[in-house]
Amino acid sequence: MKTNKYISLYEIERKKINKILSGALRKREPLSLYEPGSYILNSGGKRLRPLLVLLSAKAVGGKFSNVYNAAAAVEMLHNFTLVHDDIMDNADKRRGRLTLHKKYDHNTAILTGDSLLSVAYEYLLMDCNGNAKDVISSFTHGLIEVCEGQSMDTDFESRKNVALSEYITMIKKKTAAMAEMCCRIGALLGGGTKSQVDSLSNFGLNLGIAFQIQDDLLDISADEKEFGKTIGGDLVEGKKTFLFLEALEKSKGADRRKLLKVIERKGIRRNQVLIYKLIYEKLGVLDDARREIRAYTHMALRSINLLDEESKKIIKWLADSLIHRTS
Amino acid sequence: MKTNKYISLYEIERKKINKILSGALRKREPLSLYEPGSYILNSGGKRLRPLLVLLSAKAVGGKFSNVYNAAAAVEMLHNFTLVHDDIMDNADKRRGRLTLHKKYDHNTAILTGDSLLSVAYEYLLMDCNGNAKDVISSFTHGLIEVCEGQSMDTDFESRKNVALSEYITMIKKKTAAMAEMCCRIGALLGGGTKSQVDSLSNFGLNLGIAFQIQDDLLDISADEKEFGKTIGGDLVEGKKTFLFLEALEKSKGADRRKLLKVIERKGIRRNQVLIYKLIYEKLGVLDDARREIRAYTHMALRSINLLDEESKKIIKWLADSLIHRTS
Repeated sequence: MKTNKYISLYEIERKKINKILSGALRKREPLSLYEPGSYILNSGGKRLRPLLVLLSAKAVGGKFSNVYNAAAAVEMLHNFTLVHDDIMDNADKRRGRLTLHKKYDHNTAILTGDSLLSVAYEYLLMDCNGNAKDVISSFTHGLIEVCEGQSMDTDFESRKNVALSEYITMIKKKTAAMAEMCCRIGALLGGGTKSQVDSLSNFGLNLGIAFQIQDDLLDISADEKEFGKTIGGDLVEGKKTFLFLEALEKSKGADRRKLLKVIERKGIRRNQVLIYKLIYEKLGVLDDARREIRAYTHMALRSINLLDEESKKIIKWLADSLIHRTS
Repeated sequence: MKTNKYISLYEIERKKINKILSGALRKREPLSLYEPGSYILNSGGKRLRPLLVLLSAKAVGGKFSNVYNAAAAVEMLHNFTLVHDDIMDNADKRRGRLTLHKKYDHNTAILTGDSLLSVAYEYLLMDCNGNAKDVISSFTHGLIEVCEGQSMDTDFESRKNVALSEYITMIKKKTAAMAEMCCRIGALLGGGTKSQVDSLSNFGLNLGIAFQIQDDLLDISADEKEFGKTIGGDLVEGKKTFLFLEALEKSKGADRRKLLKVIERKGIRRNQVLIYKLIYEKLGVLDDARREIRAYTHMALRSINLLDEESKKIIKWLADSLIHRTS
């Protein structure tokens, strides 16, 4: 019953965010810049980051209605990173549609990304008042971290050895810093105390880490139908995920040699995925991942212990949904 | 004597800005991100935009020492646009060195540009206090305009007809909005009144337009030795500059047909540059450009009439130097 209430709240708020995003660039010119921007902003997505802004604002006594522009801003920032990352990864598809640089061209995608970021700041500023400096500093810090994380991720591709701890640092920057920032600006704009702001930021950071490890886990363990794509893509691309690095650290002998081949050859063939999944299972790294996800989620929830009961319930529901998601 | 004083002031301040810029990314990691960033920030340049911030702050009674970080921020923003523009233009050289994407690679250049922008906001925030919202709004507006101007400029490349008025709109966005923003944030941070802030912004906007037309003029009329590159590059690339569009609007018959060929063939051969320069001279468009530069500079200076005499003198010196520059 409670869960249904939250799902419907989520759906209502997601639609509102979608509406703001789809209107944000509509009347702007030149079209050559804002039409591609609208293409990516209208391509759907879970809108989790805006939701973190909304829930964090409410958790400290603020109102959703005062932070919708900031919520849209974090989604624009997220989409800016997607557009530029897709160019760098030479990805063809995103959310079931052509990536922006495939639909248009590279130059358009570079500039559209830049422009999304500029409009993100514009939207963020709309919801800022006395605390503009703190809010924009947090947003900017999140942006800096994302760039650093993306750069580390690229470095890892060509490195032979990456420690699990380095991987955690990378996903803290590339993924979790953004969730942290969403919670922080939501709490700041909602008028939270310093301790509330820090608690919610900490929640976001740990939830973000759990979310990314979950992403790595789903890639190999998901039900293909629900997941919407074939499993093992990370292995095929030779990505150094949590699972892969954990497996590498635990493995010996023949298993280790097989894992090292993934690095040497920068990926495996699709038909080898199941062989590697068996190695993962034998080494217990799927369970390790599940344990880490639970641990980070637990840390996330512990940091918001001081919030009021109703806020905690909805935030716990969100955390739970993310852990149990299937895609 | 006065002029010498200003030149030495400019040199002193330029060195200070260079020092801040060269230190800004030095101790940051990952190196894969910040080394390329330092490469572009250390590649020299006139540092005119930071100078506009400094002079505008001083003109309203502020101190240089309170706006150095903001001055560095506008130069970082400028360098972000250069890095991304160079990718889009597939340019090989910038300030006599390899462009960033040639020295490193495309992905590094995209991400380095993004990161320069993120650090630009960080630096800007350092100098913001009570007026953070206004300052960052102005900076963000400048960024939005630059993206729009770049998009229009790209559109013009493939269009057969571009009116001179559209060209002016484009350079207002792509070049002049940045100069406007530098003056605006300098004046805001210096504690200027609304009327002072608006006057200096207007100065920056008009100076920026004059600067860009001067750029177009130098490309065909400069002394090659002082200019540092062969003249006529814009014609070779088929760029729709002020001179070209003015010539097209004034020409008839054979001249017009020759000009239309530049559009059709997307540029001319190097050995045809002088033929086109003669057409420009015959049509009087070099003089037209000079007149426009004087007119916009005059408008720029008129808007700062209410400033104190000493501020006006140095700002006039700056405007004069820009008009009479040879490179």
